[in-house]
Amino acid sequence: MLQEMLASLTGRFRRQAPAMPRLEPPAMPLDALCRAVIGTRALSSSMALAQRLLDRYAALTFEERRDFFSMLRREFGIDRASVAEAAHLAQTSGDYAALERLYTLAEPTRQHLLRRINQVPDGTAMLVELRADLLRMLDADPDLREVDYDFRHLFHSWFNGGFLELRRVDWNTSASILAKIIEYEAVHEIRDWSDLRSRIDPPDRRLYAFFHPRLPREPLVFVEVALCPDIPSGIGAILDRERPVIAAEAARTAVFYSISNCQDGLRGVSFGNLLIKQVVSSLRAEFPRLETFVTLSPVPGFARWLAGEAQNAASIVHAPAKAALERTAAPEWWLAPDAQETGLALTRLAAHYLVAAKRSGGEPVDPVARFHLGNGARLTRVNWPGNLSAAGLKGAHGVMVNYHYELGEIETNSETFLETGAVAASAAVADLAQQAVPASPTR
Amino acid sequence: MLQEMLASLTGRFRRQAPAMPRLEPPAMPLDALCRAVIGTRALSSSMALAQRLLDRYAALTFEERRDFFSMLRREFGIDRASVAEAAHLAQTSGDYAALERLYTLAEPTRQHLLRRINQVPDGTAMLVELRADLLRMLDADPDLREVDYDFRHLFHSWFNGGFLELRRVDWNTSASILAKIIEYEAVHEIRDWSDLRSRIDPPDRRLYAFFHPRLPREPLVFVEVALCPDIPSGIGAILDRERPVIAAEAARTAVFYSISNCQDGLRGVSFGNLLIKQVVSSLRAEFPRLETFVTLSPVPGFARWLAGEAQNAASIVHAPAKAALERTAAPEWWLAPDAQETGLALTRLAAHYLVAAKRSGGEPVDPVARFHLGNGARLTRVNWPGNLSAAGLKGAHGVMVNYHYELGEIETNSETFLETGAVAASAAVADLAQQAVPASPTR
Amino acid sequence: MLQEMLASLTGRFRRQAPAMPRLEPPAMPLDALCRAVIGTRALSSSMALAQRLLDRYAALTFEERRDFFSMLRREFGIDRASVAEAAHLAQTSGDYAALERLYTLAEPTRQHLLRRINQVPDGTAMLVELRADLLRMLDADPDLREVDYDFRHLFHSWFNGGFLELRRVDWNTSASILAKIIEYEAVHEIRDWSDLRSRIDPPDRRLYAFFHPRLPREPLVFVEVALCPDIPSGIGAILDRERPVIAAEAARTAVFYSISNCQDGLRGVSFGNLLIKQVVSSLRAEFPRLETFVTLSPVPGFARWLAGEAQNAASIVHAPAKAALERTAAPEWWLAPDAQETGLALTRLAAHYLVAAKRSGGEPVDPVARFHLGNGARLTRVNWPGNLSAAGLKGAHGVMVNYHYELGEIETNSETFLETGAVAASAAVADLAQQAVPASPTR
Amino acid sequence: MLQEMLASLTGRFRRQAPAMPRLEPPAMPLDALCRAVIGTRALSSSMALAQRLLDRYAALTFEERRDFFSMLRREFGIDRASVAEAAHLAQTSGDYAALERLYTLAEPTRQHLLRRINQVPDGTAMLVELRADLLRMLDADPDLREVDYDFRHLFHSWFNGGFLELRRVDWNTSASILAKIIEYEAVHEIRDWSDLRSRIDPPDRRLYAFFHPRLPREPLVFVEVALCPDIPSGIGAILDRERPVIAAEAARTAVFYSISNCQDGLRGVSFGNLLIKQVVSSLRAEFPRLETFVTLSPVPGFARWLAGEAQNAASIVHAPAKAALERTAAPEWWLAPDAQETGLALTRLAAHYLVAAKRSGGEPVDPVARFHLGNGARLTRVNWPGNLSAAGLKGAHGVMVNYHYELGEIETNSETFLETGAVAASAAVADLAQQAVPASPTR
Repeated sequence: MLQEMLASLTGRFRRQAPAMPRLEPPAMPLDALCRAVIGTRALSSSMALAQRLLDRYAALTFEERRDFFSMLRREFGIDRASVAEAAHLAQTSGDYAALERLYTLAEPTRQHLLRRINQVPDGTAMLVELRADLLRMLDADPDLREVDYDFRHLFHSWFNGGFLELRRVDWNTSASILAKIIEYEAVHEIRDWSDLRSRIDPPDRRLYAFFHPRLPREPLVFVEVALCPDIPSGIGAILDRERPVIAAEAARTAVFYSISNCQDGLRGVSFGNLLIKQVVSSLRAEFPRLETFVTLSPVPGFARWLAGEAQNAASIVHAPAKAALERTAAPEWWLAPDAQETGLALTRLAAHYLVAAKRSGGEPVDPVARFHLGNGARLTRVNWPGNLSAAGLKGAHGVMVNYHYELGEIETNSETFLETGAVAASAAVADLAQQAVPASPTR
Repeated sequence: MLQEMLASLTGRFRRQAPAMPRLEPPAMPLDALCRAVIGTRALSSSMALAQRLLDRYAALTFEERRDFFSMLRREFGIDRASVAEAAHLAQTSGDYAALERLYTLAEPTRQHLLRRINQVPDGTAMLVELRADLLRMLDADPDLREVDYDFRHLFHSWFNGGFLELRRVDWNTSASILAKIIEYEAVHEIRDWSDLRSRIDPPDRRLYAFFHPRLPREPLVFVEVALCPDIPSGIGAILDRERPVIAAEAARTAVFYSISNCQDGLRGVSFGNLLIKQVVSSLRAEFPRLETFVTLSPVPGFARWLAGEAQNAASIVHAPAKAALERTAAPEWWLAPDAQETGLALTRLAAHYLVAAKRSGGEPVDPVARFHLGNGARLTRVNWPGNLSAAGLKGAHGVMVNYHYELGEIETNSETFLETGAVAASAAVADLAQQAVPASPTR
Repeated sequence: MLQEMLASLTGRFRRQAPAMPRLEPPAMPLDALCRAVIGTRALSSSMALAQRLLDRYAALTFEERRDFFSMLRREFGIDRASVAEAAHLAQTSGDYAALERLYTLAEPTRQHLLRRINQVPDGTAMLVELRADLLRMLDADPDLREVDYDFRHLFHSWFNGGFLELRRVDWNTSASILAKIIEYEAVHEIRDWSDLRSRIDPPDRRLYAFFHPRLPREPLVFVEVALCPDIPSGIGAILDRERPVIAAEAARTAVFYSISNCQDGLRGVSFGNLLIKQVVSSLRAEFPRLETFVTLSPVPGFARWLAGEAQNAASIVHAPAKAALERTAAPEWWLAPDAQETGLALTRLAAHYLVAAKRSGGEPVDPVARFHLGNGARLTRVNWPGNLSAAGLKGAHGVMVNYHYELGEIETNSETFLETGAVAASAAVADLAQQAVPASPTR
Repeated sequence: MLQEMLASLTGRFRRQAPAMPRLEPPAMPLDALCRAVIGTRALSSSMALAQRLLDRYAALTFEERRDFFSMLRREFGIDRASVAEAAHLAQTSGDYAALERLYTLAEPTRQHLLRRINQVPDGTAMLVELRADLLRMLDADPDLREVDYDFRHLFHSWFNGGFLELRRVDWNTSASILAKIIEYEAVHEIRDWSDLRSRIDPPDRRLYAFFHPRLPREPLVFVEVALCPDIPSGIGAILDRERPVIAAEAARTAVFYSISNCQDGLRGVSFGNLLIKQVVSSLRAEFPRLETFVTLSPVPGFARWLAGEAQNAASIVHAPAKAALERTAAPEWWLAPDAQETGLALTRLAAHYLVAAKRSGGEPVDPVARFHLGNGARLTRVNWPGNLSAAGLKGAHGVMVNYHYELGEIETNSETFLETGAVAASAAVADLAQQAVPASPTR
């Protein structure tokens, strides 16, 4: 109640603003307004101005917003000459005053501005939206990365794991949050409220999300969990609404079958890692008989990679890739008599893709693989048919995989992978990967 | 419940740590441990190590803690040569990569370390305690200001106004929080639970505090409010437990009679400003008939200043200061027949002190005056007798003052004061201040 | 968390029951089980037995349930001979022991049984379901009214107004409760979640429900409110999802446009009265500028009554009723050129119906009229077209009415109506009602 | 917030009442006011009148209150002649109408009145206070038991176990509730807040209370629990604030060392039984390693009984009782060299007292024994010295006992005890009891 009153009061300040047109001509340029926000030492004034800045921003077109960010880049960065001088001084004299001067000068003025904006009610939410806009501009205007650096740097501090609150989302959760779950689900679309209910209300289904105190009604990231008797190989059985429901206590396996990031504006500020860890801990505490924590994951980059290999005569899997692609070109090939054979070929190639296909930096090409391997999981199984929906066929010819989270090895796996890029894979997957490569005479 | 489970699980990790002595000899030096915390890219490992670091710190002596902070200063700052080089490069080349390199190098590594520590449960609380230790070392070891800079910088971000939650504290508040209110009250001591109850339970008394989501049971700052028919001139009537209680709706005046900061480790991260603003808003919304928002404040620096003037023959108030001090030297002088006269002399001198006594930077000598004037309040009345308790006599010979918060002028007052140091004072106070100075022939 | 644990524990007792088949043959007759529930003085045993009784009941067919209630009637009532004897004794001797004996004997043993059942977790909810079953049997088996008396008597005590909690239901309410609102809405069907949202999320829409501490996720009764600039005459404008949304503060009129009872098993235990009263109070406190509290109500018995009058040559409105019915027989008559004229005739007849058509006991025939007039409202307006939906045409040929709740007259209206049956109506409605009757020569 | 608004509004109605003096002369007699409360069918009026009745009652003297209850007895009971007639009719005719008439007439009109009063805000709390007054009158005016019957009957329904909510009370509980715990503790006095904290804050201490939704800030009954390594024999070690604190998980024994009923007005409406049962369940769920649930209980009737036996030459323990009393007459006898011997004699006599001393109805004389044995506990140990405080010496010469709650036998014990009065006691206690009786030649 108090918070609402305060919000409404602050809101009132805001709405009163237009009522004082004499004091401030509407045409006050945005750079001047930004300067005013950080220029005053009076907190009240600063907050009122920051609110006005946000209101002004909300009314801008996309083009104008780009101009706004460009202005921020040009005018609210660092003064490079002063920094160079201060750095030189700090190097030579080295007393505290010199250091403090260097620190202050080397931090872009934008960060000061963003911190001030963050003070107003809904400031954090608005800044997340600003960054979502900004990210959409980076490709066309890479210079703006300089501005994005400041957002990312501050979000990293403000959305630090310590601030995140894990909450279970179920049928007793507020409709406003559930509506957002429907909207944000990015892996297996939630068709309607009844579909949603089938994923959160039965006793063998769970959904957990991270929330942040300053965005109390906005999930940041969420994971959907199925409690199962054993490890599933395909998504169909999990999403089937006629499936038998089991008692949660009877489950031996927790399957993470969908993980969605919700806030575009928080891209690169990773929570998924922490989320899985905390959900595993929470489930273990609640159901001591759970033994296995495993994902059922898509392989989003597989089909594209396969097409590339099929065209690249130099690839060591050129021939099998080409052969597999030919088979999957037929209509409803997955119903054909030789579908199992095709499936086997695909699982071999997918295993190879996941284990061996690397980006220039040495990490796997597949983004989902990067995520789970980086968290310390182990790739344990490649399944066909895993997902025969249109999306599943298009992205990975129906292949899905399982990554295992074993508490005893998470830390080691994670460190090894992040240092060396080496993929933790089961022997079965390693074998499959090897089988993908046609035997050469010398082998 | 979930949070507790998680906390207990994380705690379990922690407690399990000693169970793995082979992996890590207990004598691992703290600097190595710090390096390990930031060295790994695996979040799980990093959090476990950070927890271990905090456990180790907790077991250190004060001396060892000082060594720890010195180590942080020496080994986790910036590499000045690299920064200078990067700054030079950024100045000349100026592409984004050069800039990002500069930003990264110019931020002390300590900030990275502190952000990692902040991730563990209770990390924020522990860092606040670390800084409280650090602050106690600064006088003896001013070099450590370099380390303090990083704490302050990050706390400024983490304890940003947007994160603070205003809560009313009353007789239905948890005992654990109330016990801390008793402990932290810094202006008018709370003697026991019954005394506390008399300040929060009657309908004409309020106490508001700021809380932070990561320190949910720790008030950061609180203010005690009396709802009164009119403006009080002394604290006695407010704290008197036999006073008549009025209906809150009948009050015309809200009196802020005590403001206490609670966390030593957050010194310099100011919330009091925001607190008063929000409390005024909240009270106005709840009691539309409230007209006046005013403090009843101590003048903590008055007695010391007066003694100085009495000894300084060059002071323009030398003679009256000396005369006043002589009168107040008598035992129970405030009961003497000429007490009113003494009191008047003191109010003149106090007015002069508040309006005219400045530090080298131009701000008032009196810290309470700096706080309220900086917030945009106006000094409206100097009262004698205001506080005849031992503490009140010792600090200000019994003088107390009222600062008014008028919504219409707060922003202007605050800006003017902070830019120019000019004290907003009522005509009456200005007159009193003038009367303190003996008339010279030319006046 | 504690409550959940307890619930699960109690639940465990329940589920363990089948595990002890030696102790109790499954064929223990229900009457013996009932006797066991009240026969023991040991609370633990009694609760375990009551839980078993409920489990057994849940597995019965409808036929068996009827037998169960018949058994309750026969075997758990009063012993009439003993009561007669005790009443005789109390009349003659009159000491306290005699009285207590009479009280005890005159209370059906069933009430003791029902109180015991009420002790188990979910006992209250189960009893409400039992009574819903029972009510469905009363027409065919009126003797069971004797059993219903006991349910009603105890529900009257347990669902006493003091236990009810008014809560606002909005888009932040849990989906489980919202799903029940969709299901229970009885006046203007809620088609889907999006339709629901349009009734609870905009700032000028409210929904309030009563809840009971023992049925925390079950609304008992709810009312939907539209905040409007003025009094609406038809439901179309209110349910139109393209309508302009206004600020709640700008509204002058609160319109109660739908009231639904949710629990069949609580029929006759009235809350609607209290609900409207409390919602009026709550809205007045929140929006002091609200001036008018009014319903937009259906006239559910009008069409049936009109058909009767049209067939009854002795009716004083026989001719106009017949004429009106003929006009409304045409397809899409409400779009015909003379629709306004038809509408006027209908409003006159509806006014007459509401004011003059009475049941044998003297109350209005119309159930909605009985409800609002009994609450102390005044019938102020008859509208055509009010509701041209299929349901609205079928029940009342499109007529809707407004009842006003004026705080100053509610108590008097209510008392007068309940004592005398006199309908509080505006002059306009009274006029309309009179116009319905064809002028006779003597008038 | 809503509830507060409603309360304040209802309160406003109340306060407005005096503003309508024409309608109701202040001298309206209380019986007429009672009749008005139940006389109207308009709920609004009824609630307003009931509130007025409570306000009037609050202003009465104790004498006037007694007159009020006498009036209730005379004028709001049953009409015995009508009941007798209705009972006769029901016996002969037997149709439903006759039965309903009998039920209605045989229920005292007071119950109708009390249900109406219960509707107003705070109505339940006020009725509990009314009954507390009434209970104080019963000894002097036993006729009022007739009125008390109705209170008890309704309270039995309203405070039914299903309504009670078990809550843990700890240092995070609100001060308002904690202050009541201090006030209501009836067994081992809580001296101050610091003493209270020592009983609820350490990890090996628990306090659980029952609350009721209509008295949300009032504990109804509470129990204090110590988690211990083994079964304590004396209260000193439990209350000792210097005792070693253990981790709750390390405890094997939960000791219920103090149970206090809080509301005089609910006397005879028993909750303690349910409380212990639920606390045992809750503790078992939280700490699976707890094996033993045991009380450390006073023996409040022992000293009085012993004095009686010592004076009664016919008692079979006349001689040992006399001998024991002589020993305990000496000052500080418990420090004497033969104290152990005295203690042994006392434990024998106390065992005899608990096992064999019965009231006329067959139940144990000792009230604490009746409570725990009725709940299904077993008397397992008699301890000396158990409590050497002044109160402990006065009531039981320092003896304390342990009752065990073993889940497997609670129901059987409870039933056996309640049916037959047979005391479940350990072999050791039975032996002790036998040893109390001097050996006769034939034994």
